[in-house]
Amino acid sequence: MPTLIPVILCGGAGTRLWPLSRESRAKQFWPLTTDRSLLQETVLRAHGPGFAPPIIVCNEAHRFVVAEQVRDAGIADARIILEPVGRNSAPAVAAAALLTAEDDPDAVLWMKPADHAVDAVGRLHEHLRDAVDAARAGYIVTFGIQPTAPETGYGYIELGDPLSDITRVHHVARFVEKPDAATALELVASGRHLWNSGMFVFTARSLLDQLAIHAPSVLAAVRAAVTARRTDPDFIRLDPTDFAACPSISLDYAVAERTGKAAVIPADLGWSDIGSWAALWELGEKDTRGNVVVGDAILESAENCYVRSDCALTAVVGLSDVVLVVTQDVVMAVHRGRAQEVKTIVDRLKAAGRPEAHTHKPTATAGDTRDERSS
Amino acid sequence: MPTLIPVILCGGAGTRLWPLSRESRAKQFWPLTTDRSLLQETVLRAHGPGFAPPIIVCNEAHRFVVAEQVRDAGIADARIILEPVGRNSAPAVAAAALLTAEDDPDAVLWMKPADHAVDAVGRLHEHLRDAVDAARAGYIVTFGIQPTAPETGYGYIELGDPLSDITRVHHVARFVEKPDAATALELVASGRHLWNSGMFVFTARSLLDQLAIHAPSVLAAVRAAVTARRTDPDFIRLDPTDFAACPSISLDYAVAERTGKAAVIPADLGWSDIGSWAALWELGEKDTRGNVVVGDAILESAENCYVRSDCALTAVVGLSDVVLVVTQDVVMAVHRGRAQEVKTIVDRLKAAGRPEAHTHKPTATAGDTRDERSS
Repeated sequence: MPTLIPVILCGGAGTRLWPLSRESRAKQFWPLTTDRSLLQETVLRAHGPGFAPPIIVCNEAHRFVVAEQVRDAGIADARIILEPVGRNSAPAVAAAALLTAEDDPDAVLWMKPADHAVDAVGRLHEHLRDAVDAARAGYIVTFGIQPTAPETGYGYIELGDPLSDITRVHHVARFVEKPDAATALELVASGRHLWNSGMFVFTARSLLDQLAIHAPSVLAAVRAAVTARRTDPDFIRLDPTDFAACPSISLDYAVAERTGKAAVIPADLGWSDIGSWAALWELGEKDTRGNVVVGDAILESAENCYVRSDCALTAVVGLSDVVLVVTQDVVMAVHRGRAQEVKTIVDRLKAAGRPEAHTHKPTATAGDTRDERSS
Repeated sequence: MPTLIPVILCGGAGTRLWPLSRESRAKQFWPLTTDRSLLQETVLRAHGPGFAPPIIVCNEAHRFVVAEQVRDAGIADARIILEPVGRNSAPAVAAAALLTAEDDPDAVLWMKPADHAVDAVGRLHEHLRDAVDAARAGYIVTFGIQPTAPETGYGYIELGDPLSDITRVHHVARFVEKPDAATALELVASGRHLWNSGMFVFTARSLLDQLAIHAPSVLAAVRAAVTARRTDPDFIRLDPTDFAACPSISLDYAVAERTGKAAVIPADLGWSDIGSWAALWELGEKDTRGNVVVGDAILESAENCYVRSDCALTAVVGLSDVVLVVTQDVVMAVHRGRAQEVKTIVDRLKAAGRPEAHTHKPTATAGDTRDERSS
């Protein structure tokens, strides 16, 4: 594996996993699929031979939890770029590319969100070899996931012809933004459309060239913020005024959908964006009746439930297809088929001015997910 | 209304309403149907003109919560008899009758459990006039509730002929212990069977006479315990050794089912023994979608649910017929049609040695049902 610089975007808010995920401690900072947080799993998937130390881009409000979790995962040499405000993925990755280009414009970057899950890490690493080859040939490379359902929560990528010299990598015929239900059915039925995983591989030079063409105002603002940065032993702080002046835009929209250099690798990764509690039920290890249980819970005549308790003893009797999530200050019970409607509850709580919509009750040890009562 | 001495039996454990009701603070001590506890409601239903100060019989472990709740309800002159151990209802009411008989053997007692609900208090008081008349004529009078379903959780009373002189009171043809489902259907279909409400009216003399005939060992043991009692300004303490020697037996079994003097008043009281969370849903005030909500909860697309939270904010999305009960250290979600299976969970927790089966987490203020976090 050639040397690859992981760029991990850690800015998501993840209200679809409320009440665990809130602005004060978002989805990527919680252990959801393993005993490690999603951020830690994401960092460790890009650690070892062939990988340079990672660059992590996060909101400055989250700098301590990021630094602590990364260190706890055994990563001593991460660089942490702090965004004074969130501006979506294009400015975040532009900052990482500009910093990298100061040392080596031809360095290859692997951008990925901190809050996704990948089961087939070995296969992912194999695909990365092809991705690096294509990136060095000037492509902006993404990974396309074979759809298993007509999801409306993902963008889709229409597969084009293979590259002439790297045949496991394809041209992108078209990006399709999150479709409606009917369109999603057509896309899946076509057999030519893949889910957009949100991971990209490119050289710093390619990305900056493409930004200069397709999103020059983004590049200019971020360049100013990087130039005026302040660096200390722990963090790289982008200039607040310059960064705040940057448009908020995703890399998909700013570059991928506009460039002629987009490429895609069809990849079977066991990938999930963990976009709802139902997704965590799908990913979880099930008992003989299809229940996924995390924490201190007791089930009787329950089927296909997802039960997670971070504090209280939780008992479930005679229920099917229920998601039950117990945190210190909020309990949520939702039908597994309606897990996306969690957002409705969060919106209502925000409108009512309830703190539970945004913040967790402070605990003695911020890194500890257990209730202090249970210790 | 002639003077009637309420005798309130407060010894129940009520595990069917776990996790709220536990040994350390049982069902009768919680506000369930109103802002007052069931004990307080029970005391207040027998307060005012025509009622003497109540006698309350409870386990000595509960003496402070009983005394505090009774005083909070505005009852200054209750007599509280402490049982060193639980011995079911016959010994408890025998103690009250013996104490009363010391002053007036012909006093009329109204025995009732502390943990039932009665909606039609005015009608109840009218029926009590007939009950007192029949009690003075030597009858052991109970109240029979018109069945609305083939319940297997209640005893049944077969209606006999009316008394010759008090025609709204009937002889009891037969007591039927808790039936199986098929028998319950037959009993309800017969039109001659009423639910046994567990309330009784009798004179102290009648009860003691009947005990002497049908349960002499109970009477002897309780008489010894009452004779050797210690009385202080707050409590009447039965002698532990004598009382422990008493057989454990219900008044139904010790007297009512054996005596020829049993009588019953068919009564439409809006009565419930609140034998499960489903019963509380039945009794509760419902929103337009049939949900009963107690405490800090937010519902979205929920129907016919019972949601009670004593601490955490509780959110329910897209569920029907679910009972969700949130206490400080336990969360329970159960299908409303399977609310009786709560007992199974409690048994499993007992077998596992879990404290949540028996005791509540101590709080700063024992009388406060709210979590200290929410204040």
